[in-house]
Amino acid sequence: MKVYLDNGATTRVDDRVVNAMLPYFTDKYGNASSLHSKGQEAKMALDESREIIAKRIGARFDEIIFTSGGTESDNLALKGIAYVNGKGHIITSKIEHSAILKSCEVLEKEGFKVTYLNVDKEGFVDLEQLKNSITRDTILVSIMHVNNEIGVIQDIAGIGKICKEKNILFHTDAVQSFCKVPIDVRRINVDLISLSAHKLHGPKGIGALYIKKSTQQKLKKIMDGGSHEFNLRAGTENIPGIVGFATAVRSFSNREIAHITRLRDKLIDGILKLPNVKLNGSREKRVCNNVNVSFKYIEGESLGGYLDAKGICSSSGSACTSRELKPSHVLTALGLDAVESQGSLRLTLGKFTTEKEIDYVLEVLPKIVEKLRRMSPLK
Amino acid sequence: MKVYLDNGATTRVDDRVVNAMLPYFTDKYGNASSLHSKGQEAKMALDESREIIAKRIGARFDEIIFTSGGTESDNLALKGIAYVNGKGHIITSKIEHSAILKSCEVLEKEGFKVTYLNVDKEGFVDLEQLKNSITRDTILVSIMHVNNEIGVIQDIAGIGKICKEKNILFHTDAVQSFCKVPIDVRRINVDLISLSAHKLHGPKGIGALYIKKSTQQKLKKIMDGGSHEFNLRAGTENIPGIVGFATAVRSFSNREIAHITRLRDKLIDGILKLPNVKLNGSREKRVCNNVNVSFKYIEGESLGGYLDAKGICSSSGSACTSRELKPSHVLTALGLDAVESQGSLRLTLGKFTTEKEIDYVLEVLPKIVEKLRRMSPLK
Repeated sequence: MKVYLDNGATTRVDDRVVNAMLPYFTDKYGNASSLHSKGQEAKMALDESREIIAKRIGARFDEIIFTSGGTESDNLALKGIAYVNGKGHIITSKIEHSAILKSCEVLEKEGFKVTYLNVDKEGFVDLEQLKNSITRDTILVSIMHVNNEIGVIQDIAGIGKICKEKNILFHTDAVQSFCKVPIDVRRINVDLISLSAHKLHGPKGIGALYIKKSTQQKLKKIMDGGSHEFNLRAGTENIPGIVGFATAVRSFSNREIAHITRLRDKLIDGILKLPNVKLNGSREKRVCNNVNVSFKYIEGESLGGYLDAKGICSSSGSACTSRELKPSHVLTALGLDAVESQGSLRLTLGKFTTEKEIDYVLEVLPKIVEKLRRMSPLK
Repeated sequence: MKVYLDNGATTRVDDRVVNAMLPYFTDKYGNASSLHSKGQEAKMALDESREIIAKRIGARFDEIIFTSGGTESDNLALKGIAYVNGKGHIITSKIEHSAILKSCEVLEKEGFKVTYLNVDKEGFVDLEQLKNSITRDTILVSIMHVNNEIGVIQDIAGIGKICKEKNILFHTDAVQSFCKVPIDVRRINVDLISLSAHKLHGPKGIGALYIKKSTQQKLKKIMDGGSHEFNLRAGTENIPGIVGFATAVRSFSNREIAHITRLRDKLIDGILKLPNVKLNGSREKRVCNNVNVSFKYIEGESLGGYLDAKGICSSSGSACTSRELKPSHVLTALGLDAVESQGSLRLTLGKFTTEKEIDYVLEVLPKIVEKLRRMSPLK
């Protein structure tokens, strides 16, 4: 049996998405900037797709900028705001994605000040600490919506409110939450939102950045060239990818969320019956598809290897940093020590995950854990 | 009859390319950074594709960095080198793609000095002028291999030689030339080369930057985050796009070049038989698929519209700037006045262009030209 439980890293593309993309490779293959009929065909697909994605977050058509993915969106948001200001103070958290953390590191080297907020044991940013960290020089707050490792949902409405009161721009990386946890920019205050297609059964290589209309003048481009994307991101539009992205969004509804949530709860409940295991991150405010647990006396990487041998794809953290050997910065921020962090396992579900697959994992996993514990030098 | 002669803007994706991509959407959909078997499957495809593209230009495997396209590659090359230096002088030409020109504009505002070399009537950069423009502060020369509007092939071997003598980095935008005009980095001196898939019947949204091994330390990333692409470009690798790119390269050989060249020559010869028309750019040193002509007493945009009505997709310049109303900066640099530049038409062939299509254009075009001239206020 093959069980893919690494949907936090990337997902299987929906067949409907592939079918929607296909005509744009070989039939409607025009350049959306071309004035002739083939160009206009592409332009129409671009506009329709933009509309679909804008609507999902309550945004205006011209507030969605397509990018090559979440990393580019994060870079554009942070550097775009930072470089227009030239200097200043940025507030983020210790559990952000590496696209945010590494961008902040670079900005620090260039003279920007960055505050990295702590999170509590459940994984939440403290809004009081946020408030107290704001200075006269603060230009941007960037706090992710849902964490990629532990799935915790931050109170972005609360963060947005603070930013609005202090008149500071607010960016959130919603790559892991998009379509899984609703966001409506008409109800919460947020200036920039990073989105990505391949975490929700869309294609790789396409993402978007929501940029509030009034914030668009305050952004420096990172990709200069043609006047594509309302002159905010140059480069020939990836029409098949964009159409695929919109189709993935359309194909991800409350029904999918309910299905995934039910299976996730079954998986968590099943795993927590085992001895010496704990769930990392809040159980209540958690994205529908994330399970992250720490097994005592076990080395996570071996666990992943054994699961893989049984056909189960899992992760011991974020795929983007999976080749690094140091313990997860997210689990460390939660207060886990190196040993607990080492024994962690992330299982992330997708809309194609079935009950049978979850049953299979709950049958196989306890045996592997037991076996590894028997051989473990850690206990 | 439908005739697509705007392959300089973008191309129809080859069916072999689509077929090669398909499994990577729905079967081998892993994240190349994941350690499990599905991740390794993706990693293998990534490595194989990189090898294919590296080989085509005589480069090493680890000198090819995948990007989201030509614009990103150009931005990474220019800004990557500029920002590592902090200040300095850059030499480019007046006929570069907007990704280069706009990046240079931004760099100028930030204190970099930029020299824009003239071109002669044929479209060539003067190597003597280049030599004389080099100063002690020069950090980079960026001259495109093949121009996107007029198809002229620059003497990049000669330019590379000068740069080597003066110990200055050399970048070339080879988006329009890749696979159409050979480049071998073992034979010519070049440090950075921008490549793109969608100009050669590959997918949109994927490109590459060749970065000579010894130049890699001299580059500042523009996309920070994970350690993807030898830590030179963060972001989950677009595996279907990358596999498609490699397949497009594999599917473009000397046979395709010969086919396209023959049809281009037939098209040029046919058009030049008409009265009051001239070819823009050198005929001899010209990429196989480009025809760019100026008709006296005609307004190019109307010509494009009439051709479109007859099913023929053409362009009056670069797609990336086709919504701008000012005359082409490339034709202006060749010495054409506004009226000549306005009467220009670009027809760019692809490997799917047929003799029948060329015959059709040669039948339809003269009638439209005659009709437009009869109504023209310009004559």
